[in-house]
Amino acid sequence: MPVMTPDDLHRFLEQEFPQAPPGISVESVDDTTIRVRQKTEDRHLRPGGTISGPTLMAMVDCGFYLLLLARLGPVALAVTTNLNINFMRKPEPGDLLGEGRLLKLGKALAVGDFTIWNEGQKDPVAHATITYSIPPARQ
Amino acid sequence: MPVMTPDDLHRFLEQEFPQAPPGISVESVDDTTIRVRQKTEDRHLRPGGTISGPTLMAMVDCGFYLLLLARLGPVALAVTTNLNINFMRKPEPGDLLGEGRLLKLGKALAVGDFTIWNEGQKDPVAHATITYSIPPARQ
Amino acid sequence: MPVMTPDDLHRFLEQEFPQAPPGISVESVDDTTIRVRQKTEDRHLRPGGTISGPTLMAMVDCGFYLLLLARLGPVALAVTTNLNINFMRKPEPGDLLGEGRLLKLGKALAVGDFTIWNEGQKDPVAHATITYSIPPARQ
Amino acid sequence: MPVMTPDDLHRFLEQEFPQAPPGISVESVDDTTIRVRQKTEDRHLRPGGTISGPTLMAMVDCGFYLLLLARLGPVALAVTTNLNINFMRKPEPGDLLGEGRLLKLGKALAVGDFTIWNEGQKDPVAHATITYSIPPARQ
Repeated sequence: MPVMTPDDLHRFLEQEFPQAPPGISVESVDDTTIRVRQKTEDRHLRPGGTISGPTLMAMVDCGFYLLLLARLGPVALAVTTNLNINFMRKPEPGDLLGEGRLLKLGKALAVGDFTIWNEGQKDPVAHATITYSIPPARQ
Repeated sequence: MPVMTPDDLHRFLEQEFPQAPPGISVESVDDTTIRVRQKTEDRHLRPGGTISGPTLMAMVDCGFYLLLLARLGPVALAVTTNLNINFMRKPEPGDLLGEGRLLKLGKALAVGDFTIWNEGQKDPVAHATITYSIPPARQ
Repeated sequence: MPVMTPDDLHRFLEQEFPQAPPGISVESVDDTTIRVRQKTEDRHLRPGGTISGPTLMAMVDCGFYLLLLARLGPVALAVTTNLNINFMRKPEPGDLLGEGRLLKLGKALAVGDFTIWNEGQKDPVAHATITYSIPPARQ
Repeated sequence: MPVMTPDDLHRFLEQEFPQAPPGISVESVDDTTIRVRQKTEDRHLRPGGTISGPTLMAMVDCGFYLLLLARLGPVALAVTTNLNINFMRKPEPGDLLGEGRLLKLGKALAVGDFTIWNEGQKDPVAHATITYSIPPARQ
């Protein structure tokens, strides 16, 4: 069972993490997976009506951080060391859904992947892998 | 349904692809996933008895190529353009199992991911993403 | 010689690309390299006073796009297909400088790398590689 | 000044690292860069006469490991945690030259990039980034 629920995570986002991407929320979380929703607005759009790459990258970064928080608790101060993302289809305006998977939670590094879809569509728009460094205090 | 079966792929490996990693074989394949087995020998080992990183990278590269062949047929001459791999646990001597997933099959690019386990173990030893460029003749 | 100068690029950013990261500007550009500056403000900061990862990723994405524009001209509509970034040191508040290098400009794909420093410091805070897909109309 | 010279590294390869790619040698090394040569033979070739991707990946992995050895000394037992490679041009038969750069040498992680050329040619055939985890004993 994760240490923090979606409600705990939303409270953490509001109180401790005002720089989080606006419009992100947690749909569900368990020990090794998280499901997040990103509402999008005009400022996320690129010419042609597609959602910008940085919006997707911020969603991956924050979504996986929330999964680590849920697992390790709010004292964690993990930092991203590597993020690799493949943009596969042009995301359309509307909500994005993301699913993160924890593939490894080691003493020093956590590794996972993250897939993003337009809500209601089958084919993913992007897939990323991400590594977080976990500070020694957490080990 | 894929165009080539595991038996077709083994025949292709023998006749057309003598440079493939020795000891690789296809367990199963469908339209978007493949399962491959890599037998390992002493020459794959590193000091400490672990299987070398290049062995895993060659397994990803060949395994995903076989998935593309199964889907597109033997005339394809796709080339790898990007491979990103996270090594997560030390692989132990013994057979490796790999599972490839096709995340996108576009006109010019195919993108997927690939997870590798020691046989009989739950936690993956490595996870990779890979992009293949598909030559115009195939489109 | 590049097709667009830093002034041309700034005009393009203002008129055609309002979604670009605020505070980014081009210091210099030639055929295969670009130097960009990113001014940072409070909203780029994370707890502890460090600049957020998404700020760096947006800088890479936009900076390399500007290098492609300078080389190919303003009609290009290239899209990012892969971005891989290693975060190596905590960036401190203050201006960031980034240097992009075009490693390949092919018919369908452009590949480069991008290094980011805090102004006045020797060790880079991040290093990224990026691939853009170039639409057939540009070939 | 590095702790190990090219001759030291060649001796280490012979005595301690028989699994290293045959035909690799060190041309020069200093504190933050290394230059290696990879002789290629028929078994490195793919249909069409190009050098295989796994040959290039093994060259990156071993070349960067040699750079770390030169800097830290022969007791190091670093392991690769991430390797990302972009294949940009088809390498032709003949010797490959590779240049590795150490971008960060931290307490727990070392990060660098690695560029590969066909000897005598200006445009690189591949560019990679690589992260090694450094065991606590070395810190």
